[in-house]
Amino acid sequence: MGGMNGQQETSIGVDMGGTSIKFAVVRGEKIIAKGEPVQTKECGSPDAVIAAVGERLRALREQYPDVRAVGMGLPGFVNHAAGVVDSLTNVPGWYDVPIRRILEEESGLPAAVENDANCMALAEWKLGAGRGMQDIVCLTLGTGVGAGIIAQGQLLRGHLGAAGELGQVGIDYRGRIGHYGNRGAVEDYIGNGELALEAQMRYATELGVHKPIDELTPIHLEDAAKGGCPVALGIWDDAARKLSACLLACHYILNPQAFIIGGGIAKAGKLLFDSLRGYLKAQIYPAHYEKLQILPAQFGGEAGIIGAALLALEDLAATR
Amino acid sequence: MGGMNGQQETSIGVDMGGTSIKFAVVRGEKIIAKGEPVQTKECGSPDAVIAAVGERLRALREQYPDVRAVGMGLPGFVNHAAGVVDSLTNVPGWYDVPIRRILEEESGLPAAVENDANCMALAEWKLGAGRGMQDIVCLTLGTGVGAGIIAQGQLLRGHLGAAGELGQVGIDYRGRIGHYGNRGAVEDYIGNGELALEAQMRYATELGVHKPIDELTPIHLEDAAKGGCPVALGIWDDAARKLSACLLACHYILNPQAFIIGGGIAKAGKLLFDSLRGYLKAQIYPAHYEKLQILPAQFGGEAGIIGAALLALEDLAATR
Repeated sequence: MGGMNGQQETSIGVDMGGTSIKFAVVRGEKIIAKGEPVQTKECGSPDAVIAAVGERLRALREQYPDVRAVGMGLPGFVNHAAGVVDSLTNVPGWYDVPIRRILEEESGLPAAVENDANCMALAEWKLGAGRGMQDIVCLTLGTGVGAGIIAQGQLLRGHLGAAGELGQVGIDYRGRIGHYGNRGAVEDYIGNGELALEAQMRYATELGVHKPIDELTPIHLEDAAKGGCPVALGIWDDAARKLSACLLACHYILNPQAFIIGGGIAKAGKLLFDSLRGYLKAQIYPAHYEKLQILPAQFGGEAGIIGAALLALEDLAATR
Repeated sequence: MGGMNGQQETSIGVDMGGTSIKFAVVRGEKIIAKGEPVQTKECGSPDAVIAAVGERLRALREQYPDVRAVGMGLPGFVNHAAGVVDSLTNVPGWYDVPIRRILEEESGLPAAVENDANCMALAEWKLGAGRGMQDIVCLTLGTGVGAGIIAQGQLLRGHLGAAGELGQVGIDYRGRIGHYGNRGAVEDYIGNGELALEAQMRYATELGVHKPIDELTPIHLEDAAKGGCPVALGIWDDAARKLSACLLACHYILNPQAFIIGGGIAKAGKLLFDSLRGYLKAQIYPAHYEKLQILPAQFGGEAGIIGAALLALEDLAATR
């Protein structure tokens, strides 16, 4: 059984991505077991997905009877207070799903639900790079831009649970039209796919070389840049410039102590971080820039699942 | 003497602007007396300004012996927790001034200090258009763009007390270089002066008319637009488009329940608000736009002074 201290208690974290749903049993700060993932496309309808999730939860609970609660992160608009998925960005058919109630019925455990990037931010804040801070912005840069914000020692949810949608922040008011009709969303400029397309175009026009898109992933572009390739160096610098515009909006609105950055694009490491620091330094009041940290995320792909498990225990403690 | 309820207690609010400092005695929700303003330029040095402020405070305290505390709003970076002015935007010589301690010494009263726009936001939140809400963004549009944010039922201050600098939020990552080296700050596109210059240029090029700058204030442009002038209508639509880009960044980062807008430019009223609603509606997820309010501020020029007086009593209550 769990001890008096919430850190020692056991819970299940569930992390839903675009293609699969992952499960883990988390005790203290560690993943002690993983469940078999659910492949969402194989299931088809939301109902079939939920049935498969319920099955996994019951199996894990049987194996780990000291599990106290279950938390789930989902990729889209999740209203934590209501326990409802409003809509998911890249998963069709999920509208107004009372997911918390369903999880509770399926598992027999108290449940909590959140946006997946908010779960990631919780993990980095409670156990990772943002430990002990009160004001942080956590980003994950990959296919899209996900983020979660801690403001004044609380996860920032906003009026409808939709705060922290950093990927939608505009960097050009006359720019291309994005997912919600919004102009110049940063996500439309610096996702993996955008970087690859931009690199392909530059290789063709600047060096007269045709490169297939699948040889232009962040890892390829990182290697090329490290080898001194001017196109790849230009791509990273340009990505840093555009990302900095989004972070500057966060800085001037939120005044955080740190930006914590993870995900595939962040793996470019020193390349991206050095450029980013340069653009931020040039555009922030010096005394404020001095006290701003730009840090790599500590957790990798497991931040979401750990954060969901933490959230489950937090919410449980709050209702006791 | 003040009653048990903070709303009935009396405090002094001080509001520092670019040219003068205003004083009022506030009881409950009302201004019951005003002090003679201090003209900052006549004083010269910060020390002389502070001496004049101290004199006014002692005079008001003598007249109103039930005054319990003093609060002051200042136009720039104010660290509320430390009680220090880091720097003021348009008032030279104010760097690292321990203004709270000075106010306490000069007045013999407990003191609190804040950014002036944060004071305005406090007034609109506690007593004005944002009453009862948990998540609001309050803007004042004039020479510059000032703002204060209430997030999850708290004034959002951030790590160094510099949150809510909406005027510095960029709307174009390749745009003009602003006050802190930052690109495309919205304030550099929609201040009174910018609107006048833009209007002057358009009158000349589109209608072949030369208009002096002082006939192109927000009030003139509002009248012209109401009269159907295409140049003035275009100016307001363009201002709304640019302002919407800044509000969209706030929406996606903070997910507020309402934007509350005051100041000289906001006096264009229906013209500006209708255009603004159109641009926001087109760029926000419909279910979220439906629940977003765009409201005129309830207080006029007195919001800052009332908010400063409220802050003084809030901080006093917190230390009891």
